[in-house]
Amino acid sequence: VSAGTDEGLAADVARALSSASLRGVDSHGVRLLVHYVRVLKGGRVRGGAVPRVLSRSGGTAIVDADDGFGHPASYLAMAEGAGLARRHGIAAVSVVNSSHFGAAGCYPLVAAEEGLAAFAFCNSDSFVLPYDGLRPFHGTNPIAFAAPVPGARPYLLDMASSVVPWNRIQDYRTRGRLAPAGVGVDAAGEPTEDPDKIASLLPIGGRDFGYKGAALASMIEVLSASITGMAHCARLLSMAGPDLSTPRRLGHFFIVLDPERFVSRDVYEAGILAYLSDLRATPARAGQKVMAPGDREWATEARRAAEGIPIPQALAAEFIGLGRELGVDTAIFGDGSGG
Amino acid sequence: VSAGTDEGLAADVARALSSASLRGVDSHGVRLLVHYVRVLKGGRVRGGAVPRVLSRSGGTAIVDADDGFGHPASYLAMAEGAGLARRHGIAAVSVVNSSHFGAAGCYPLVAAEEGLAAFAFCNSDSFVLPYDGLRPFHGTNPIAFAAPVPGARPYLLDMASSVVPWNRIQDYRTRGRLAPAGVGVDAAGEPTEDPDKIASLLPIGGRDFGYKGAALASMIEVLSASITGMAHCARLLSMAGPDLSTPRRLGHFFIVLDPERFVSRDVYEAGILAYLSDLRATPARAGQKVMAPGDREWATEARRAAEGIPIPQALAAEFIGLGRELGVDTAIFGDGSGG
Repeated sequence: VSAGTDEGLAADVARALSSASLRGVDSHGVRLLVHYVRVLKGGRVRGGAVPRVLSRSGGTAIVDADDGFGHPASYLAMAEGAGLARRHGIAAVSVVNSSHFGAAGCYPLVAAEEGLAAFAFCNSDSFVLPYDGLRPFHGTNPIAFAAPVPGARPYLLDMASSVVPWNRIQDYRTRGRLAPAGVGVDAAGEPTEDPDKIASLLPIGGRDFGYKGAALASMIEVLSASITGMAHCARLLSMAGPDLSTPRRLGHFFIVLDPERFVSRDVYEAGILAYLSDLRATPARAGQKVMAPGDREWATEARRAAEGIPIPQALAAEFIGLGRELGVDTAIFGDGSGG
Repeated sequence: VSAGTDEGLAADVARALSSASLRGVDSHGVRLLVHYVRVLKGGRVRGGAVPRVLSRSGGTAIVDADDGFGHPASYLAMAEGAGLARRHGIAAVSVVNSSHFGAAGCYPLVAAEEGLAAFAFCNSDSFVLPYDGLRPFHGTNPIAFAAPVPGARPYLLDMASSVVPWNRIQDYRTRGRLAPAGVGVDAAGEPTEDPDKIASLLPIGGRDFGYKGAALASMIEVLSASITGMAHCARLLSMAGPDLSTPRRLGHFFIVLDPERFVSRDVYEAGILAYLSDLRATPARAGQKVMAPGDREWATEARRAAEGIPIPQALAAEFIGLGRELGVDTAIFGDGSGG
């Protein structure tokens, strides 16, 4: 709010970031606040944006993010989609003129908490090598899917279509560690484990079977760019800049559906519980446990809801710096000395 | 028809098999005829099934395959879904009491040829190791997605969520060749390249990053089993038998949407053409070309439409054997001696 947006929009951004951080998705958690303040001050993201439903037609709607944050527009799209799915059984909502929306999983999760199932799709600027390619093309294009589970937190898949997210490479650089094999290639398209030399990520499946991850990224691209009418990955302004003043005009795409149009609540619940319990009971490698999508995240959420979200010292220092710049009290982070 | 089904059902099966074979998807092409005759004669698949729309509600419908072939029920589901998507903008159709439906891509393709975009999801019996698991759990669970491309064959993604399909392992066995590393594990869950020892396939992402492929398989499971009310992978009768008389009661799930509810036809067409042309223009490894999902398949289709579908000698011999058994003329395959 001190950086120039209103309480409602800021609350939606904070909701998405803390939701991701609580689940342990630190790459898309509270650390993004630093970036968001920069793009708000730069003018890329309009602090006074008014996201709204631009049009409705049958089970579909278009939400205009008004060149503001992606999070309020995406929560609005999900609320709209949930309402339409309750009326029509299934709904799709595109979001246009948007910006980064944090973790894709935040939005299907809202629908699943209300008993619906939902997908989220979004593209990003180029980070990932196409199969047989030499230069990055697709973004880390995430897909998320959530569905209700009786008596438990929802089923939640939330993943990039690259082997690892770009942020992981930055993390290896910071810590002076090698990246695992099969994660990235250098500027010539050759495999490298040196994080400083990694110029492109590999799609899921790596160098040998990456046509599968590349195809998945491509499908996500068609949904979030071609069908929304927004720019595709290779024509998007870079998230990192240097241009932090021009709106990026990202597209997102959401699908929401009501399982009860296909099966009674009882049958659905018995089916998903049997599936999850059989999956988790699969014999595992020594010291491991077979998990369903979301299991790790909900265990982290339970722990962090009690103990708090750990903030690394470097991030605390950044928050303290922001607080000084914007006149916000950051006493909760100590004096920045790591104390 | 000679094995005990009617012309209409047989035509839909033939349509799906020849569509897959023409595109070069030989694992899911005409070779499946041999299997289908076995399950028809065994009684697993009812030759006199009458697939029908069981119920409609808003943008959704349920199709009952009536324990018959999956192909006629899936074409019916797609026709129903296309009609609903034209009325509501988006539609979802579940198929219940079904059996193997061939290549998942056959059905979204029909919608894309009519200007719509569509998904198909289906599970299978257990072939794929869960991440950190020791025994196969998920099926090779395919996902398919198609969308229209102006002036060209549709955009078409059609893939299993395992690194390779099970059929590929059988192929290595037949040819006495080693499998590539990162494709399968033995009965103890240890990596092996010996196709005779491969007991489970790895999910996309392999042993190190297979949580992504496993999550994708899992999402497909929730859609095609939990939401349809049909059995999940670990509780399905094996496709291969030995039981060929009990209906398998597979579920499929289809989503169809009309891009023109989100964007004008002109903007959609310009967007997908720009995306595909930028993707294909990405610099490639020596001797390679960056392709979009479907590019390889449509090139094969053009060639095979002119030259015919190649039938390996062993398959021709099987067809000739079937012909003898069923009193069908198989002169087109020669005398089975490979001449």
